[in-house]
Amino acid sequence: MPSKDSWFPGHLLELDRAECLQLLAGRVTGRIAYCDSGGPVVVPVNYEMHFGAVLIRIAPYSKLAQHLRDSPAAFEVDDFDDFNQSGWSVLVRGRAEYVDPDDLPDSDLRPQPWAEGHRTLYVRVTPSTITGRRLVAA
Amino acid sequence: MPSKDSWFPGHLLELDRAECLQLLAGRVTGRIAYCDSGGPVVVPVNYEMHFGAVLIRIAPYSKLAQHLRDSPAAFEVDDFDDFNQSGWSVLVRGRAEYVDPDDLPDSDLRPQPWAEGHRTLYVRVTPSTITGRRLVAA
Repeated sequence: MPSKDSWFPGHLLELDRAECLQLLAGRVTGRIAYCDSGGPVVVPVNYEMHFGAVLIRIAPYSKLAQHLRDSPAAFEVDDFDDFNQSGWSVLVRGRAEYVDPDDLPDSDLRPQPWAEGHRTLYVRVTPSTITGRRLVAA
Repeated sequence: MPSKDSWFPGHLLELDRAECLQLLAGRVTGRIAYCDSGGPVVVPVNYEMHFGAVLIRIAPYSKLAQHLRDSPAAFEVDDFDDFNQSGWSVLVRGRAEYVDPDDLPDSDLRPQPWAEGHRTLYVRVTPSTITGRRLVAA
C-alpha cells in the first residue's frame, strides 16, 4: 500500500492533443463510460486506436452494447506513480457507434480482449474532444 | 509497450461486496464520473473510504463541484497486469453530495490530493451498488 504522507503538491499541466493521442496509442487497457438512467457507468476494456478513434470489442447482448449504440460516451486512460505522487490522464469524449465490419482495420490492428466471451461487436468512439493532464511531482 | 500477442482468454469472476470494499480500501487513486449534457465525464482523483463511502476533495468552483452536488455519480478503481493480461476492477454507483465539515473524519483519515489547488470541498459518494470483477489469466 502506498504511503499516505503528504508531499508538496504536484503541478497540473494541460496536455495538447498530439501528446494525448501519443499516450492513447501507447496503452492497451482503458475505461469506457456511458450514462444510463441511474447515472454514469465506467468499465475497463481493451482497445486500439484507429484513425484517431477508440475501437473496442464487446459482447453484442451486453449492457455496453445497449448503451453504446449512437450514444454519448467517454474513454479514459491514465497512469499514476504512487511513490512520486505523479501521473497523467487522457479523456476522450465523443459519440459511440457500432462499426460496420467492412470498416474494420486488419485483424492484427483490432483490439484483442483479454477476457473470455463472445465479443463480436466492434464499437468506435469518435472524439469530439480529447483532453489530458499531467501531474508533475513538485 | 505491452505485447499485443493474444493469449488464451482469461476468466472473469464476479467479486463479492467484501472483496470490493477491501480493494477500495487499498488504493489512493481512482476515477470519479458524472454525466453532463454531453454525456459521461471521468476524472482521476485521490480518495479515502469512510464508513463505506468514497470521500474525495475537490475545488469548490470546479466542474466536478458543479456536477457532484446531490447527483448520481460513479467511482471506479482497477489494476491490470499487461504481461499476464489479468487484473481487477471495482465500480461504485451512488449519489454524490457535499460533506458538512462536522461530518469529516480526523484529518489523517481524509483524502490527500496530490495535485496543487485550493481543494476545500469534500464530496462523498454513498454507494447504492458496489460491483467488481477479477480477470484471471487462463
